[in-house]
Amino acid sequence: MKQLTVELGERSYPIYIGDGLLAQAAELFAQRGISAKSPLLIVTDTAVGPHYLEPLAAALRAGGYTVAAHTVESGEKSKSLAVLQDIVATALEAGLDRKSAIVALGGGVVGDVAGFAAASYMRGVKFVQVPTTILAHDSAVGGKVAVNHPLAKNIIGAFHQPELVLYDTATLRTLPPREVRAGLAEMVKHGLIWDASFVAWLDENAQRLLALEPEALQYGLFEGCKVKAHVVSADEREDDLRAILNLGHTIGHALEAVAGYGELLHGEAISIGMIGAAKLALRLGCDPEIYTVTKRLLQHFELPTRMPPHLDTDAIMTAMSHDKKFKEGRMVYIVPTAIGRVEINKSVQAELVRDIVNELKEEA
Amino acid sequence: MKQLTVELGERSYPIYIGDGLLAQAAELFAQRGISAKSPLLIVTDTAVGPHYLEPLAAALRAGGYTVAAHTVESGEKSKSLAVLQDIVATALEAGLDRKSAIVALGGGVVGDVAGFAAASYMRGVKFVQVPTTILAHDSAVGGKVAVNHPLAKNIIGAFHQPELVLYDTATLRTLPPREVRAGLAEMVKHGLIWDASFVAWLDENAQRLLALEPEALQYGLFEGCKVKAHVVSADEREDDLRAILNLGHTIGHALEAVAGYGELLHGEAISIGMIGAAKLALRLGCDPEIYTVTKRLLQHFELPTRMPPHLDTDAIMTAMSHDKKFKEGRMVYIVPTAIGRVEINKSVQAELVRDIVNELKEEA
Ligand SMILES: NC(=O)c1ccc[n+]([C@@H]2O[C@H](COP(=O)([O-])OP(=O)(O)OC[C@H]3O[C@@H](n4cnc5c(N)ncnc54)[C@H](O)[C@@H]3O)[C@@H](O)[C@H]2O)c1
Ligand SMILES: NC(=O)c1ccc[n+]([C@@H]2O[C@H](COP(=O)([O-])OP(=O)(O)OC[C@H]3O[C@@H](n4cnc5c(N)ncnc54)[C@H](O)[C@@H]3O)[C@@H](O)[C@H]2O)c1
Ligand SMILES: [Zn+2]
Ligand SMILES: [Zn+2]
Repeated sequence: MKQLTVELGERSYPIYIGDGLLAQAAELFAQRGISAKSPLLIVTDTAVGPHYLEPLAAALRAGGYTVAAHTVESGEKSKSLAVLQDIVATALEAGLDRKSAIVALGGGVVGDVAGFAAASYMRGVKFVQVPTTILAHDSAVGGKVAVNHPLAKNIIGAFHQPELVLYDTATLRTLPPREVRAGLAEMVKHGLIWDASFVAWLDENAQRLLALEPEALQYGLFEGCKVKAHVVSADEREDDLRAILNLGHTIGHALEAVAGYGELLHGEAISIGMIGAAKLALRLGCDPEIYTVTKRLLQHFELPTRMPPHLDTDAIMTAMSHDKKFKEGRMVYIVPTAIGRVEINKSVQAELVRDIVNELKEEA
Repeated sequence: MKQLTVELGERSYPIYIGDGLLAQAAELFAQRGISAKSPLLIVTDTAVGPHYLEPLAAALRAGGYTVAAHTVESGEKSKSLAVLQDIVATALEAGLDRKSAIVALGGGVVGDVAGFAAASYMRGVKFVQVPTTILAHDSAVGGKVAVNHPLAKNIIGAFHQPELVLYDTATLRTLPPREVRAGLAEMVKHGLIWDASFVAWLDENAQRLLALEPEALQYGLFEGCKVKAHVVSADEREDDLRAILNLGHTIGHALEAVAGYGELLHGEAISIGMIGAAKLALRLGCDPEIYTVTKRLLQHFELPTRMPPHLDTDAIMTAMSHDKKFKEGRMVYIVPTAIGRVEINKSVQAELVRDIVNELKEEA
């Protein structure tokens, strides 16, 4: 088992990563002071629950915890206020009180909606992340929780740090391969923004990661979480530094919005977005290696690098203007300045971004 | 204009109380660093908006602010996730960003739902309370915000302190008399839990308060807010002391739930609850004056002191067990120990409370 800590003063918490950790849940919960006197609620989804709900609930019950469960539909649609209301109904019926914890067993969707339930039930109860996707090495760390509004993604939420993150890599074996690849896109992002030697390792170990080789997986998740934890520790509420986590996300979010959520997975969209950011770096005169390495890396991970050409450039530009406001034709953009380093550029010309969007449709 | 501060370290904020303060809104907002570069959203209700929305919006616009508005139905039903979703839609359409503020113009209902919107829109934006009821001298101070769930009141919420509270006592002139009395019940509560000399003043000035005499009103609201601010400063997140604010609320909440919200206003229910607490004090051997003074005071304010006899005692006891869990036939109860002083008694016998509920139906 690997362990690291997200340093946030009195809100600091550990991340445990290991194969078969679900079985140790009760012990790890107790170590973190989660009371067995108050009932727990596990929130999971219809794809994850059938595999892992009973093992987790059983492990917790064996350790003296009272456990209730709530299963939401698999998929982004579950990040809604309606689902929040349902989760709260189950919490009330199960008698959750102010000392209870809500446990998210699933990917980023479950983590985000269950996390917002934990942030707001009785004005805040404890929260535990049990991520079951690779992407969730990103979403489960850092305390951002939210649901979507019909008009905007992640717009209703909170900062609510978990008590612990319990990452059982054995759960990843049932993850569909496309979700594996998409999750690895965020791992690549963590390398690109912070750690050149991690990038080199990723470049060499892509096949082992795609094959979910336990040792490689644990190392990659550990390093990815480490970058995320570091950035979050320095800037919990996204006042400045935390924005670097958005590498590839400006174009990525716009793509998701325009393609309609579903055509592109989040990780696929940001893969294309990271190519866009690398192209932007070229245009701004940075080392051409940034582009070559980024491209090669994403190809090793079998991730898309080309924008679906049928997507309308104007629509993408408009979507971007919602995401990050243009001011006088300029926008904020996370641009790589070297492998393992990015800057927050606050005056990238929107016209330049438009050129790049068009180029991305021609990308090999 | 009177002013006091809720001391909460870097979350400290001022409360301004005065006749005609709406006109000074822009200046007071600016003093608190609310940016005129980002749009504001005023949330109000259908009873308050027609009187005060335009004056407030105009005052803010004159000071350079961009102002949008959202009006909810008057009444407790507006404290819902559905209304939250509507408020967020308006916020998005109006272009509110992370530097924007949401302004609650209304009573406790508007304050609670707009406050939860401010706590969760983009994971938290600034919040301003502009209370227009007497009860809101309680609800607008302290940062508790929430919406209701069909199964439980105030169960989905946050702690989100405002940047300032702007209390224009001129707005109270349109408040229906029954709402005036109900609001004064919370003022009486603040005296009873903390300040014997304020209780004496209330006893002598009931008629002036009922008549909304400006000087008396401002003094009463100031003293009431002072008690609330003091308690909140000592215990922001209700770990211990803050519970004393629940004097009269154990029975009060149960009464509201059983009578169905509407038959009894909140202030009326806690008036009866405070008589219950005083009777409990008698049974526990405290000074009989507690009961006589409490009773006389509430009668001066023309508040009910008798429980509607048609309400079923069993139903009330069950409702109470939801509110504050019984443990082995005992419950937590806020009991006066003298005028201006209460204790948190953690082992009041449920059977004793049942007797008192029955007695309250016979009360004069
Ligand atoms: N809070 C944050 O900081 C943050 C950061 C990044 C992304 N996110 C959010 O995360 C979400 C995406 O996360 P995700 O990719 O994990 O999505 P997800 O939770 O939807 O999981 C992807 C799919 O895999 C299924 N699944 C999950 N674990 C499985 C397993 N072990 N075996 C089989 N199937 C499994 C899910 O049911 C789903 O169909 C988005 O909503 C995004 O907004 C949040
Ligand atoms: N957050 C807290 O700490 C806290 C504390 C106590 C109560 N509350 C909540 O406050 C709510 C009760 O507050 P309230 O009594 O202010 O209720 P309210 O907001 O419903 O106002 C009472 C009625 O008066 C109307 N009204 C308000 N101001 C008016 C004015 N100036 N002129 C004419 N009509 C006016 C309203 O439309 C409503 O019909 C409850 O939901 C309760 O849960 C919250
Ligand atoms: Zn992402
Ligand atoms: Zn009250």
